[in-house]
Amino acid sequence: MTYTDATIPEIDQAMHQAAQDFYYYKNLSPAVRRQFMHAIASGLEANIEDLVATAMEETHLGYDRLKGEVARTCWQLRSYADAAFAGRHLDIRIDTALPDRKPAPRPDIRKMMVPLGPVVVFGSSNFPFAYSTAGGDTACALAAGCPVIVKAHPAHAETSEKVAKIISEAASANGLPKGVFAHIHGADFDIGGALVSHPLVKAVGFTGSTSGGKALFDLAAQRKEPIPVFSEMGSTNPVFLLPGKLKTSAKEVAKWYSGSITLSVGQFCTNPGLLLGVASAELTEFATELSKLMAQLPSAPMLHPGIAKAYAQKREAALSQKGVETLAVGVLPVNSDGSAAPVGGSGVAAEGIPTLAKTSGANFLANPLLHQEVFGPYSLLIECADLGEVKEVAAHLEGQLTSTLIATEADMLDHADLVALVQEHCGRIIFNGVPTGVEVVASMQHGGPYPATTDSRFTSVGEDGIRRFVRPVAFQNYPNALLPEALKNENAGGYWRLVNGEWSNKAI
Amino acid sequence: MTYTDATIPEIDQAMHQAAQDFYYYKNLSPAVRRQFMHAIASGLEANIEDLVATAMEETHLGYDRLKGEVARTCWQLRSYADAAFAGRHLDIRIDTALPDRKPAPRPDIRKMMVPLGPVVVFGSSNFPFAYSTAGGDTACALAAGCPVIVKAHPAHAETSEKVAKIISEAASANGLPKGVFAHIHGADFDIGGALVSHPLVKAVGFTGSTSGGKALFDLAAQRKEPIPVFSEMGSTNPVFLLPGKLKTSAKEVAKWYSGSITLSVGQFCTNPGLLLGVASAELTEFATELSKLMAQLPSAPMLHPGIAKAYAQKREAALSQKGVETLAVGVLPVNSDGSAAPVGGSGVAAEGIPTLAKTSGANFLANPLLHQEVFGPYSLLIECADLGEVKEVAAHLEGQLTSTLIATEADMLDHADLVALVQEHCGRIIFNGVPTGVEVVASMQHGGPYPATTDSRFTSVGEDGIRRFVRPVAFQNYPNALLPEALKNENAGGYWRLVNGEWSNKAI
Repeated sequence: MTYTDATIPEIDQAMHQAAQDFYYYKNLSPAVRRQFMHAIASGLEANIEDLVATAMEETHLGYDRLKGEVARTCWQLRSYADAAFAGRHLDIRIDTALPDRKPAPRPDIRKMMVPLGPVVVFGSSNFPFAYSTAGGDTACALAAGCPVIVKAHPAHAETSEKVAKIISEAASANGLPKGVFAHIHGADFDIGGALVSHPLVKAVGFTGSTSGGKALFDLAAQRKEPIPVFSEMGSTNPVFLLPGKLKTSAKEVAKWYSGSITLSVGQFCTNPGLLLGVASAELTEFATELSKLMAQLPSAPMLHPGIAKAYAQKREAALSQKGVETLAVGVLPVNSDGSAAPVGGSGVAAEGIPTLAKTSGANFLANPLLHQEVFGPYSLLIECADLGEVKEVAAHLEGQLTSTLIATEADMLDHADLVALVQEHCGRIIFNGVPTGVEVVASMQHGGPYPATTDSRFTSVGEDGIRRFVRPVAFQNYPNALLPEALKNENAGGYWRLVNGEWSNKAI
Repeated sequence: MTYTDATIPEIDQAMHQAAQDFYYYKNLSPAVRRQFMHAIASGLEANIEDLVATAMEETHLGYDRLKGEVARTCWQLRSYADAAFAGRHLDIRIDTALPDRKPAPRPDIRKMMVPLGPVVVFGSSNFPFAYSTAGGDTACALAAGCPVIVKAHPAHAETSEKVAKIISEAASANGLPKGVFAHIHGADFDIGGALVSHPLVKAVGFTGSTSGGKALFDLAAQRKEPIPVFSEMGSTNPVFLLPGKLKTSAKEVAKWYSGSITLSVGQFCTNPGLLLGVASAELTEFATELSKLMAQLPSAPMLHPGIAKAYAQKREAALSQKGVETLAVGVLPVNSDGSAAPVGGSGVAAEGIPTLAKTSGANFLANPLLHQEVFGPYSLLIECADLGEVKEVAAHLEGQLTSTLIATEADMLDHADLVALVQEHCGRIIFNGVPTGVEVVASMQHGGPYPATTDSRFTSVGEDGIRRFVRPVAFQNYPNALLPEALKNENAGGYWRLVNGEWSNKAI
């Protein structure tokens, strides 16, 4: 099914509706807001088979993966709704009056977070549910109290349309006005630009390419009123293989990574794209084992022809660089008659070929092209001359969503300066594991120094993602009866509040 | 005394020193960091008479005001240091492992805030202590664990130099390396640009003009790695005079405002520059009383010739607009022989003349020049035809640091839509008070929608200002012994942490 791009007047109308209904939604009782978000989750569950079937057709992702993704999406909606209901994002601070203070009395001041206003969310291509129409950004913005305008990803527009219908039905069933949620189709890049540039928009959530995310960030910074843009643009997620751990566990680690590199055809923003170690018998053992495993893994269709073409081009460009050796190539696709099928490129057969390449530390340092993400089931092993060179590479890496340390505790202590450097360049640091698999928990940080994301101070996964869409307002000397519920003496919601410097969930 | 501008190589060297010593300062024990900041406060107190004398000469501000400002600066340093020691800015989240979870175990994940890196702070002209060298931005960044590079405000360079010496001595007395603090002179605007553009800088704090703050914001957004800029650029701080309250208290409110408009020669970013009410006998009573009071107040020297000149020009431009009536002018300056002294302009006698003007709501709406801040002891009374026009003006105002409601509780309920609109445009909302006088407490919000500040999600006053200079990092499956102290099971610091969804200050 194809959808027509929204027109500029349609976008303008959606924005005005959102801005108008913002006041209603902002002041909605937290219980009804939670109920609305739970209703979206129930709606997704009630339609899961149809949604998954549609997404399978549009994205080539598998049944189990997509079913799991819907479950994750529902968990996000419900857990963020519950976190907001508990008021954890409100950051309430109360300092009561000191009428006898000299030289002047201290007024009563009470502060809490309030929603920013209408938020534009761009559906991502690699998570048709969890980071699209009813995904993490939408769930965070709705939990914060912001109306949402979603731009459907054109590669799964029908899935998006079906999810949008479920959201609208949940809104209507809970008596919410129309402007709380809008769904816009826009294959043309200008539609995205028009959305971000609209004066009534107050924030933007985006998951996708560096060029796309950066373009939106630039547009937003150049507005008359600049607004925050949370672009999650991916990274190469370096994995540091330290000598002690590799000595005992090279084969085991290789097994973890053959799975992690090729999971969902490598189409995760946390895909491990760089593996770094010191030239040694252990590193060779690791490389040999990983090559063996990856060579046995099948090629598989990628999300859409654009992504497949980009993978084919970037993979080819990387493999053809001076000093880059191809260590392993997965099983190539075949036609039903057994002949070799065409690969990648012009959208003929959108295949992601598992690929492991290798280069030296010196070569990597000298060639900026090798620092770029190759989005797909690809990883580059960087064989360094010594740990000094590993450190040098670490110092030259750009900001990352994740970094991983494959290490013994002794390795960590022996190379504390490397560990410190690695932490400086990422948002999440994993000890003896893989970066793929992003838990949706309060402790998750999914976001990192630029260019992993445009704002390292926030996360796009976990309930703290709600904080992207709020700002503080202080009320000075307000009569108790006129304060927002969360700031009243009674504290009927039982919120945790910092009252005169002490935490309390009691009344004042 | 005059100081030479720093050279580009000197700036580069300071940045490298800061970036290098960042690791030391970041990992410093919280107790030593607190001790360092307390030592700065003690150093300021030990030198208070000399500091105040120097600042009096450089800024024309009075002895009591400046002495009070040093006390405030010391309170900021100590209270932010104590807040950071208590770990309130760390936002610790811990989700412990669920090894038996199906289909896959859940890893242990622990998240906390870590400092961003070197921060550039621009000294402000109107607060030579509290928002300059050892002021709020510096205190927040140091509390966060970030090295600070201060650019002295050229209008009080000697005060800045003396404060910088106290900071460096406190650093040295606490064994801190040189790069924790640097002090740069730079009268030339290019010095500011070079600081913000330097690749090793991670964030910027600025208090000053809209043009200056916006220029730094734009520079930072255009960097290869964009960084956050917290520019606090001031606002007109509208005061809404609602009918019920004005009926009973017109004279009392006029008295509050004659003081607030002229406090420190009107040189506060929270100065009430717009007073809005509905044409009525009460409003006329208020205007008459306020005019009478302001006409008795003396003109006084402003901070420096540049500010005096800007005030003279903007005041003149506003007063000469069509439909603007001058209601009151304060007592003009006289020479020692009693003759009229020259006023404003070319730095001859930098005098700020208390001024009250008046216009209609329609005229205000039609003339954008009247929306601009006139930085000084000036306010514009907007006489609206009815409350509908007050609302229209409110809807057309730009983002504000503060808004004030002069109202009875009945007024607030009767005009709930106006109150809602007013809240949407500001960071702090005051009930029956004045916006000047910004308490340094956790509940303070000093920051508002653009163009009041460049980022409404943060405050530059109160301990939450520390959050401007941190970002979250998650540690996945880390051995307890290798975690940062704040995330260890033991919780030796007794921090409040969200552990598996529940708040706790205990060990795990």
